Amino acid sequence: MSKSTVKPAEGKLGVLVVGLGAVSSTFMTGVLMARKGLAKPVGSMTQYDKIRVGKGADKKYLKYNEIVPIADLNDIVFGAWDVYPANAYESAINCEVLKEKDINPVKDELIKIVPMKAAFDKNYAKRLDGDNVKDVKDRWDMTEQIREDIRRFKKENGVDRVVVLWAASTEVYVPVDEKVHNTLADLEAAMKADDKEHIAPSMCYAYAALKEGAPFIMGAPNTTVDIPAMWELSEQTGMPIAGKDFKTGQTLVKSGFAPIIGTRCLGLSGWFSTNILGNRDGLVLDEPANFRTKEVSKLSTLESILVPEEQPDLYTDYYHKVRINYYPPRNDNKEGWDNIDIFGWMGYPMQIKINFLCRDSILAAPLCLDLVLLSDLAARAGRHGIQRFLSFFLKSPMHDYTKGEVPVNHLFQQYVMLKNAIREMGGYEADEEID
Amino acid sequence: MSKSTVKPAEGKLGVLVVGLGAVSSTFMTGVLMARKGLAKPVGSMTQYDKIRVGKGADKKYLKYNEIVPIADLNDIVFGAWDVYPANAYESAINCEVLKEKDINPVKDELIKIVPMKAAFDKNYAKRLDGDNVKDVKDRWDMTEQIREDIRRFKKENGVDRVVVLWAASTEVYVPVDEKVHNTLADLEAAMKADDKEHIAPSMCYAYAALKEGAPFIMGAPNTTVDIPAMWELSEQTGMPIAGKDFKTGQTLVKSGFAPIIGTRCLGLSGWFSTNILGNRDGLVLDEPANFRTKEVSKLSTLESILVPEEQPDLYTDYYHKVRINYYPPRNDNKEGWDNIDIFGWMGYPMQIKINFLCRDSILAAPLCLDLVLLSDLAARAGRHGIQRFLSFFLKSPMHDYTKGEVPVNHLFQQYVMLKNAIREMGGYEADEEID
Amino acid sequence: MSKSTVKPAEGKLGVLVVGLGAVSSTFMTGVLMARKGLAKPVGSMTQYDKIRVGKGADKKYLKYNEIVPIADLNDIVFGAWDVYPANAYESAINCEVLKEKDINPVKDELIKIVPMKAAFDKNYAKRLDGDNVKDVKDRWDMTEQIREDIRRFKKENGVDRVVVLWAASTEVYVPVDEKVHNTLADLEAAMKADDKEHIAPSMCYAYAALKEGAPFIMGAPNTTVDIPAMWELSEQTGMPIAGKDFKTGQTLVKSGFAPIIGTRCLGLSGWFSTNILGNRDGLVLDEPANFRTKEVSKLSTLESILVPEEQPDLYTDYYHKVRINYYPPRNDNKEGWDNIDIFGWMGYPMQIKINFLCRDSILAAPLCLDLVLLSDLAARAGRHGIQRFLSFFLKSPMHDYTKGEVPVNHLFQQYVMLKNAIREMGGYEADEEID
Amino acid sequence: MSKSTVKPAEGKLGVLVVGLGAVSSTFMTGVLMARKGLAKPVGSMTQYDKIRVGKGADKKYLKYNEIVPIADLNDIVFGAWDVYPANAYESAINCEVLKEKDINPVKDELIKIVPMKAAFDKNYAKRLDGDNVKDVKDRWDMTEQIREDIRRFKKENGVDRVVVLWAASTEVYVPVDEKVHNTLADLEAAMKADDKEHIAPSMCYAYAALKEGAPFIMGAPNTTVDIPAMWELSEQTGMPIAGKDFKTGQTLVKSGFAPIIGTRCLGLSGWFSTNILGNRDGLVLDEPANFRTKEVSKLSTLESILVPEEQPDLYTDYYHKVRINYYPPRNDNKEGWDNIDIFGWMGYPMQIKINFLCRDSILAAPLCLDLVLLSDLAARAGRHGIQRFLSFFLKSPMHDYTKGEVPVNHLFQQYVMLKNAIREMGGYEADEEID
Repeated sequence: MSKSTVKPAEGKLGVLVVGLGAVSSTFMTGVLMARKGLAKPVGSMTQYDKIRVGKGADKKYLKYNEIVPIADLNDIVFGAWDVYPANAYESAINCEVLKEKDINPVKDELIKIVPMKAAFDKNYAKRLDGDNVKDVKDRWDMTEQIREDIRRFKKENGVDRVVVLWAASTEVYVPVDEKVHNTLADLEAAMKADDKEHIAPSMCYAYAALKEGAPFIMGAPNTTVDIPAMWELSEQTGMPIAGKDFKTGQTLVKSGFAPIIGTRCLGLSGWFSTNILGNRDGLVLDEPANFRTKEVSKLSTLESILVPEEQPDLYTDYYHKVRINYYPPRNDNKEGWDNIDIFGWMGYPMQIKINFLCRDSILAAPLCLDLVLLSDLAARAGRHGIQRFLSFFLKSPMHDYTKGEVPVNHLFQQYVMLKNAIREMGGYEADEEID
Repeated sequence: MSKSTVKPAEGKLGVLVVGLGAVSSTFMTGVLMARKGLAKPVGSMTQYDKIRVGKGADKKYLKYNEIVPIADLNDIVFGAWDVYPANAYESAINCEVLKEKDINPVKDELIKIVPMKAAFDKNYAKRLDGDNVKDVKDRWDMTEQIREDIRRFKKENGVDRVVVLWAASTEVYVPVDEKVHNTLADLEAAMKADDKEHIAPSMCYAYAALKEGAPFIMGAPNTTVDIPAMWELSEQTGMPIAGKDFKTGQTLVKSGFAPIIGTRCLGLSGWFSTNILGNRDGLVLDEPANFRTKEVSKLSTLESILVPEEQPDLYTDYYHKVRINYYPPRNDNKEGWDNIDIFGWMGYPMQIKINFLCRDSILAAPLCLDLVLLSDLAARAGRHGIQRFLSFFLKSPMHDYTKGEVPVNHLFQQYVMLKNAIREMGGYEADEEID
Repeated sequence: MSKSTVKPAEGKLGVLVVGLGAVSSTFMTGVLMARKGLAKPVGSMTQYDKIRVGKGADKKYLKYNEIVPIADLNDIVFGAWDVYPANAYESAINCEVLKEKDINPVKDELIKIVPMKAAFDKNYAKRLDGDNVKDVKDRWDMTEQIREDIRRFKKENGVDRVVVLWAASTEVYVPVDEKVHNTLADLEAAMKADDKEHIAPSMCYAYAALKEGAPFIMGAPNTTVDIPAMWELSEQTGMPIAGKDFKTGQTLVKSGFAPIIGTRCLGLSGWFSTNILGNRDGLVLDEPANFRTKEVSKLSTLESILVPEEQPDLYTDYYHKVRINYYPPRNDNKEGWDNIDIFGWMGYPMQIKINFLCRDSILAAPLCLDLVLLSDLAARAGRHGIQRFLSFFLKSPMHDYTKGEVPVNHLFQQYVMLKNAIREMGGYEADEEID
Repeated sequence: MSKSTVKPAEGKLGVLVVGLGAVSSTFMTGVLMARKGLAKPVGSMTQYDKIRVGKGADKKYLKYNEIVPIADLNDIVFGAWDVYPANAYESAINCEVLKEKDINPVKDELIKIVPMKAAFDKNYAKRLDGDNVKDVKDRWDMTEQIREDIRRFKKENGVDRVVVLWAASTEVYVPVDEKVHNTLADLEAAMKADDKEHIAPSMCYAYAALKEGAPFIMGAPNTTVDIPAMWELSEQTGMPIAGKDFKTGQTLVKSGFAPIIGTRCLGLSGWFSTNILGNRDGLVLDEPANFRTKEVSKLSTLESILVPEEQPDLYTDYYHKVRINYYPPRNDNKEGWDNIDIFGWMGYPMQIKINFLCRDSILAAPLCLDLVLLSDLAARAGRHGIQRFLSFFLKSPMHDYTKGEVPVNHLFQQYVMLKNAIREMGGYEADEEID
């Protein structure tokens, strides 16, 4: 019997995904297959992980839904926007992530997921050229149209709660501009003034979601909700926001491997990371302006794990470099190669090389599921604003930088934050320290 | 101001090392260089790590010696036994781990470390053939001679406290025999009966150390102190014991990397580990009977981290294989290659390959230092028997298997155990759970 | 217009394969698919390679079948023996090398390839336990039954020419015994005396094939035709023999990469090769007695490419080690990892690591095709005995060691031998030297 | 008894090197050590390789100097230019390629090699800022000053023959401009007009060398002598020219490995090459304009080995990408990582990954020696213009593109060209075809 005081997960949960590409179609197919018992949602914390609650004699290990009211997979209803008109079935087939035999049993359901017209601005993703695109007057109108989409989706599907998840491409880099992004009033003014330079389309989705009472999750490294104006809005509407950038391949390994080095007090002189990938994400990132957004997101990981100020003998002046290369032969099967130069006793150098042959969408799909279910949970728990407990799932975890907060990138510290939040929402003591 | 009630570390600390090869000479050289300020003891927790003590407003991050009375590097006096007569300087030069410029500044001190004759039985290490060996009547006499060595060492060096550290080769595999190894009485009887099959030379060292009031640390995977008879003795003499097998290269990575997989709820279908190394350790392990001892030690690591019973969908029937290959071209610079077959969403497979170009002695030396200092600390704290808090440093951590205890191999759980013990000895609350 | 005087390839060509496992079923499926234009026989020299013939003004680049009369894919008829009763379709599906969509278009043809009962002796492959096995009185009877199978196959299929190809497992190591293996008379006597120790089942297949006027190809590292008695028989019946051990993954790379080192006059201090594979071949090789056969085959490769006697400064005392590990998670997708320690200017060391994620059967299938077609060609050209020009396809190329011949393992020298033989059979000058 | 009609190598050979950095100082140190018998010039073809001459009964294997009159190591006199004033000893110590014990025995000789002031233009290498630089009026004056340096060097050292070797940095990319680079007259006019955009400093060195009767070798990927104007000059003065870009690490492997794939008729879908290096070369290449020069040089390698037109099923549309990354932690020990996507039977994909932990200067030094000795040989043999037989040593071998010549990048074909030239100069038949 759960002691949680979180509102129960009654009724259907709408999941509206921006971008119906490889990640989204793999996510949807897996959920639909899992609820028929035809596939296992491996990699999903909400479906597999067990958390200790209590101590000593009261110690128990419980699954998340034994602690808090997580929405059931059977209650999920999917919708999407995309610049390409392909439905979820066509998308799943085209992106070649899953074998046909793992898609066909849910073909009928996937076919019905037809993308709504996307709110799109080609200047933000030059390499994309779909035409399933909204005709908008300005950024404000763009926002209004998305809000209308959300309302219609809820009505047509008899859905009470909606979560909006960005699983689309990386946009070009939008630096935070204090004249536009710091207050909600300024943001709204810029939308009305159709300030295309400072208002990325993703911001229109986020604004619309929050206004319609839906949590918003940013799965790409876009600035979007990582600005004070959006925090203000999320407080106002009482909605959670989470981001940014799904922690899938190389950064997942980095955020787990750097702690090994740090915990053993080994030194670091350099870390070189390169990636090859051939899917639409890789194509977009081949554009330097879009890569810049990603690079900023990926580079920060080490800095907060191996900290020069704390261990100057070990972590001063290490050289960290990240490269991403578009390489079509592999399609969605991206690959990371890391070379790590460490040093030990008396400063003697050693090397570690990690070669990760991963699959982008296979690693991202369970993150989508967890982020959606936990954002919905947070909303019902009355938690609004930045959800730091979701850092575990994200490459560049949001934090209130205006207050000098630093991000937590250490995988096992992120895990403690996740567990503590679940415990707390479950009515247990959040009894772990992160170090 | 420390709140610790542990006896202070007054006077000199004798460190008697069994085996004066690559690991030992690197350890000694580094300590001597470090206390002249000419090298940094990188990789040593006692010299670098900081631990949180207290919570909330009382939270502080302190180095170990700010919490508990760790012996000072300046108080260490080294001694050794070896089957080869080379002194520590000659050994350091011959094994080619360190550059001459990193040895010569402490040449005078190293030259004085001349090994005592070793207690040796060629049947336990066929590939070794040194002749700096004790002439013994039987195993009991072997033990008596070692005890006499220890007493003489203490007297000649004006040393009160001694720690005995095994940094010698892997012996052939000695399975636990309940007729010989379960009680101290049986063990002593077997020594007196000169039972060469069940009493490895290492057991004579351990027995002698404990009898003389010295903690004993087993750095190889030998059975030695991993038997109830030795636990009984260590209780009797109030001495700590620790073992077994320094966690240096591949297993260090494994015990840190497996938690990444487990924490993210990814599945595992196989893990293949191979090693090439060319030092004396590699030569000895090229003998199948000696490798068997090592294999048992290395294989257990995964089982307690990725547990089939807890996550049957993810960890049932994974295939784990460990190989070690003698490969002279690299000498002490051993190399590990791991191939890890994981699976994610809907069971789709991915691969991770880790190539670790490490240096055996460079990784082992700080472990020697920490194990010695922390065993000495434990002795002063009145802790006797198996020191589970030292699992962090060991490939195959000792545990009371007669009571069904399971080893903790998860690097970050081991780290919690280490921190809690330091906190406790420091008079703070041991306030972390290991999960 | 070819100038070849080789007999034309008229009528059908029977291909009888010993072992209907992964390699054979992939080979057969690919040939059947290719002749429908549904797949490309990539990796096959007879189907793709072009050879220069003539020099200067007469120089031309021609495909093999423009030089010599190679049998057409459309004229091939397949048959097989196996200890398991599965037909070629079932085998292709079970071994999971090819996707179903690449098998199904030729399902009808594959289903008809039902294996005849195998001549089998469990002592030669302990890990196999099929029961589609001949009931034989002795080795001589075993031979007779195989001969009867060949005659029946020819008759039932209206086939004139047959080639017998061993694509089955590695047998336990049979050292050459001069009392049994040196003369045909001794060999036949041993068969009649049912000398199970010296007469492997594979020898019965080879004897039967040669007696029935069929070339015999040994694709595993078995001794079989690598003995003077078989050479005598092949001379007697005018048949070609070829072997041994398909050069597929790691050794292919080794025989091509060692020449890079040798040609550039770089030194070698060590080469460590390890393999993981999970198919039936890996299972059999997990048995030490069977691995020994393979190890002997694989180790010889380097010795004849990087020769200490010729370059003592560069190639004296390099350390060469080969390991094969059964590792089920990967099935047929075997993987090689090579570490190569080279040295350059002034003896300074460097390292090369090669990680080959290959597919055993995908690499072996084109070798099967080429060896079959080229053995059939050789037979029509009147070439009998050891076919050294086929060394290109083999890990451990046969050569007359009784005359002090040394094997050629250098990939590019083997290629010259192959080209020269084709030129010669085509009526052109064999105008290349191998160095 | 050599049958060569090449002029003997009498008197001293001056070797003037542009750039006295890691490569040059390693080259010089090794030659000086080798002639004292203290080091072996491993990797040098002229010192180690043996070539077959004659066929059949006349076949012999001879070292180069048994075939042609190669200059003796004892006759070499070194000189250099550099923008930094450090002498060869200081440079060898600073660049940390060689251990001090391998430098000190020739310290006295190295100290005397003091660099002359360099002809330098910072716009061609922004990251360099040495001030040991000539004060010049214009490009023509730059050339004149270099000529004067050469004459003075010859006189002061009693040297008859000189070879000038560029072992300095990569300059920014200078595309061939037909108005400037096509005729000697245009080139000279541009020098006189001080056309800094089209006349790189390296062209002044080359021009000066050729005018002074010295062969010129371009070891970087600079355009320099790869223009018709220089070919005209080299014809005029009868001097050989060679270039460009020493074939050291990754491209050496590529030019040897691609032939393995091609020879076995395996398909290629992609080849991704990345490099990390931390020496001065890496620093310069971190500048995009300089990298462009290198990229053009490195990309061409595959195109001429795996040719789509010849094997459209196998080599059409493969994706080839080359990256170089400045990564200081490794200094001169650069590292290449190649991922090669091949396909076999029925198009099934496989992967090969090559990780080369090499040392730039250790691989380059023997190339310097061979290029110098063989250019000097060619000069004495009366061979002028582009020396295609030296392609073996070069990443981007020069060829007369105005006549539609294509470069030969296939390592083993380059080797045939080398052997044939040596044979020819030695009075033997150049009897090998390159395929």
